[in-house]
Amino acid sequence: MSVQGTLRLQSVADDGLRFEAEFPHGRIAYDSGAAAAAPNPVQHLLSALAACEAMDVISILRKKRQDVTAYEVHMQGERAADHPRRYTSITLVHRLTGRGLQRAAAEEAVRLSAEKYCSVHHSLRPDLEITNTIELIEA
Amino acid sequence: MSVQGTLRLQSVADDGLRFEAEFPHGRIAYDSGAAAAAPNPVQHLLSALAACEAMDVISILRKKRQDVTAYEVHMQGERAADHPRRYTSITLVHRLTGRGLQRAAAEEAVRLSAEKYCSVHHSLRPDLEITNTIELIEA
Repeated sequence: MSVQGTLRLQSVADDGLRFEAEFPHGRIAYDSGAAAAAPNPVQHLLSALAACEAMDVISILRKKRQDVTAYEVHMQGERAADHPRRYTSITLVHRLTGRGLQRAAAEEAVRLSAEKYCSVHHSLRPDLEITNTIELIEA
Repeated sequence: MSVQGTLRLQSVADDGLRFEAEFPHGRIAYDSGAAAAAPNPVQHLLSALAACEAMDVISILRKKRQDVTAYEVHMQGERAADHPRRYTSITLVHRLTGRGLQRAAAEEAVRLSAEKYCSVHHSLRPDLEITNTIELIEA
């Protein structure tokens, strides 16, 4: 299975760091610094992990006939102080709102994503500690 | 150093997988499937790595007074056939266009990013083989 795309520098004339990636289903903007026009690559990595897990979780919960009316993931990553300032830990809080949601179903969905399905999760360093917690809210 | 953001499901009413991440400098759209309206998380991961490296490379080349007039990175990632279908290898072709670009300067910039600076690179599995190649084009 091959994934392909092209990234292009958008700010050739100045000292900017704006890039845009092109894929078959759309474009992704990257920037960095205090006046950035888009999130930076490190923020993108954090939400790529969250989105990967969240797509698994919502798919599994729909198969389990759970009535989810809203779903947010609060993301927090900690980075090392020294270069290359890699992520050392990431916490994802899955906040699921719905009618009569079952905690066991949500826990199994998150566990299946983290252990079995999420391609982004399993492309990250094994010593990067990823913690998933679940909050259920009655709609 | 802490990185924070919120991811939200956009398609509650149907079976869609559209999510949007919110960060201080902008939003990022995620989708999946044949009719997706945005790249999927695995594509996002690939270009987050490329953008991370490319920001380092262009910054270093500017410091080295290299006259870059265009910069593209052609990205290709290979994934395992079985779940969790993680990346097994990624190839990044850095295509730099400019006036009188020095190959040694470009090679050092890419090497410094990969070995020392790129936070995304160093957050990935050590056994994920990342290959960087450089193409120089005279403007």
